[in-house]
Amino acid sequence: MKVVSLHSDPDCLTLEWEDGGSTPLPAIWLRDHCQGAECRDPGNGQRLLNITQIPIDTRIAGAELHDGRLRVDFEPDGHHSEFQVDWLLEHCRDLEQQHDDRSERMKRLWRGDSFPGGLPHCSYELFRDGADHQRDALRAVRDYGFVLLDAVPCESGEVLRVIENFGYVRETNYGPLFEVRARIDANNLAYTNLGLGCHLDNPYRDPVPGLQLLHCLASSTDGGESVLQDGFLAASILREENLQHFEILSRQWINFRFRDADADLRSRVPFIEVDDRDNIIKVRFNNRSIDVIHLPPAQLAVFYPAYRHWAEILEREALQVEFKLEAGQLMLFDNTRVLHARRAYSATGTRHLQGAYSDLDGLYSRLNRLESSA
Amino acid sequence: MKVVSLHSDPDCLTLEWEDGGSTPLPAIWLRDHCQGAECRDPGNGQRLLNITQIPIDTRIAGAELHDGRLRVDFEPDGHHSEFQVDWLLEHCRDLEQQHDDRSERMKRLWRGDSFPGGLPHCSYELFRDGADHQRDALRAVRDYGFVLLDAVPCESGEVLRVIENFGYVRETNYGPLFEVRARIDANNLAYTNLGLGCHLDNPYRDPVPGLQLLHCLASSTDGGESVLQDGFLAASILREENLQHFEILSRQWINFRFRDADADLRSRVPFIEVDDRDNIIKVRFNNRSIDVIHLPPAQLAVFYPAYRHWAEILEREALQVEFKLEAGQLMLFDNTRVLHARRAYSATGTRHLQGAYSDLDGLYSRLNRLESSA
Repeated sequence: MKVVSLHSDPDCLTLEWEDGGSTPLPAIWLRDHCQGAECRDPGNGQRLLNITQIPIDTRIAGAELHDGRLRVDFEPDGHHSEFQVDWLLEHCRDLEQQHDDRSERMKRLWRGDSFPGGLPHCSYELFRDGADHQRDALRAVRDYGFVLLDAVPCESGEVLRVIENFGYVRETNYGPLFEVRARIDANNLAYTNLGLGCHLDNPYRDPVPGLQLLHCLASSTDGGESVLQDGFLAASILREENLQHFEILSRQWINFRFRDADADLRSRVPFIEVDDRDNIIKVRFNNRSIDVIHLPPAQLAVFYPAYRHWAEILEREALQVEFKLEAGQLMLFDNTRVLHARRAYSATGTRHLQGAYSDLDGLYSRLNRLESSA
Repeated sequence: MKVVSLHSDPDCLTLEWEDGGSTPLPAIWLRDHCQGAECRDPGNGQRLLNITQIPIDTRIAGAELHDGRLRVDFEPDGHHSEFQVDWLLEHCRDLEQQHDDRSERMKRLWRGDSFPGGLPHCSYELFRDGADHQRDALRAVRDYGFVLLDAVPCESGEVLRVIENFGYVRETNYGPLFEVRARIDANNLAYTNLGLGCHLDNPYRDPVPGLQLLHCLASSTDGGESVLQDGFLAASILREENLQHFEILSRQWINFRFRDADADLRSRVPFIEVDDRDNIIKVRFNNRSIDVIHLPPAQLAVFYPAYRHWAEILEREALQVEFKLEAGQLMLFDNTRVLHARRAYSATGTRHLQGAYSDLDGLYSRLNRLESSA
């Protein structure tokens, strides 16, 4: 697409595009986004100037289009900037669209019956070898919040090698990886054969690990099925059913805590985190580790019904997918969005998972590279 | 302190303390916080019941004090709970006080002249060996946002071993550790001999690493002095000087981005992050990696003056401490609060730092353990 005309006054330059659209660009924005070698490092594209170095009364002295480039002259500092029209098209055709890979607006929300053709999955061999398959699997994490990897070798520590494909291990007090199996004297109920309701891990950690991996090495017990649930959908249902409840849980922060002999992890965070547009960006729920709830009695009276409502939505079976993770399968999920649960399991047989954490930023960075090289 | 009397109605139990204070505890709160073995795992203290398992019409049928314990009987489920009075004193004497180790309310804000006796520091030997010295150094990180460690062996990789004392390495695309020295074809301006203005690292990463360590292995150049600045104080100055500017920067999120051959890291976050009480909990500033600013023109007109004001405060020398990091010194600082800068340095001589990231949650967990065992 081309720029067919432009007109400028000292404060603003307006580009008219061949499709009839127009983009008004304030003088200060243009000066701040100068792509010249004095203002941006030619190698890495980093901005070399600080906003305070730009004169406060910056205005446009003149502008002209030539050969796919826009030249702008500024007063009072006499600076000249050049912009490729293609750069302008890519970066400011619509100045209202920010990059957003976290909020509910950019996600595909799902419920129990949303995957009639099976859950998003990928063979580990293709994931490891093939850029396209890996890209699609990472897109599933971005869009649905999870993907299953099949035929991951049942070797201890393989979960850490899976992470090397897209990011970095987030080590915690549970170690670089943690063993999920029934133990004597468990420091965490995860390490028993009790059922666990839908929850997100580590709300007592700030920042919370954005990704969790659970790799099944053995699965011969009765029970122990896995459950996943879209926490963004659940929070949006809460908002639909009772806006006040949603607002209480996003605006009234609480404490979470985990304590054992070595650790005492404490956070102060909301159940539902929203961005500047009130879009959901993160959810938390873990009945085991909600700390003592400190609120004045009048606020407790409105907080508890909202909290109960949230917990009740998270128990609705229609929102959940349930499946048995078999030996060799691994689930990779967004721990800021997708809740997981497991059914209680028998004392006979063996159920052994290895888990690890990672972060969303590494995965999205990898996905961005795969998408731009496609 | 003792409970001298209690009176209860079905909805609320009120404890009267011997100092004349009183604590009203709603029935649902008491039932939810039951410390009995059916409701809490006796080993790890994790809550065994979900809020949805507590009857919605829970009320107090009776309550009595006996031998330092409070017994409460509930209807309609006939549940009995016991609480140690000491537990109640510790956890609900004042239901309005939440645990908060992140916000400005809990910090000691500082400016350039706040440390007439020298910057907070600790010898590495004492830090490593002595619980009290380590506790005091970690408190300095919590309260002031930074501490200097002296006489850290000038061995490559030592910065990673320092982290083992209190937490875990947050590996990134720059590696588990990164070398800060002038390089040819630097992918980041940090790896040149240019001066860098006050900034926080990695605002394009979400979650941002909460801690940064910079360990000086060689320092024989002219220039290259280090600067630190309290970003919480700077943000509070912005709020005092122009509340509207503060609100624009906390309520209007923007994109940050870092891109090279391997990574494309993108975030959507505010310059100033506040909690549910509008207290500052995190600040960001890095002119190099602010992405294209996407806002409608009318919002740009109010955003730019606020952004300039924020940048201008961050250049005020009276807010900064400046010092030369010598070989063997290491600075450990809160990357959600404390900005750092370095002066340009000469091409002759050697300046070599090794850096690494970690997270605040691990450090605070360690500090909580050291404080509770003191």
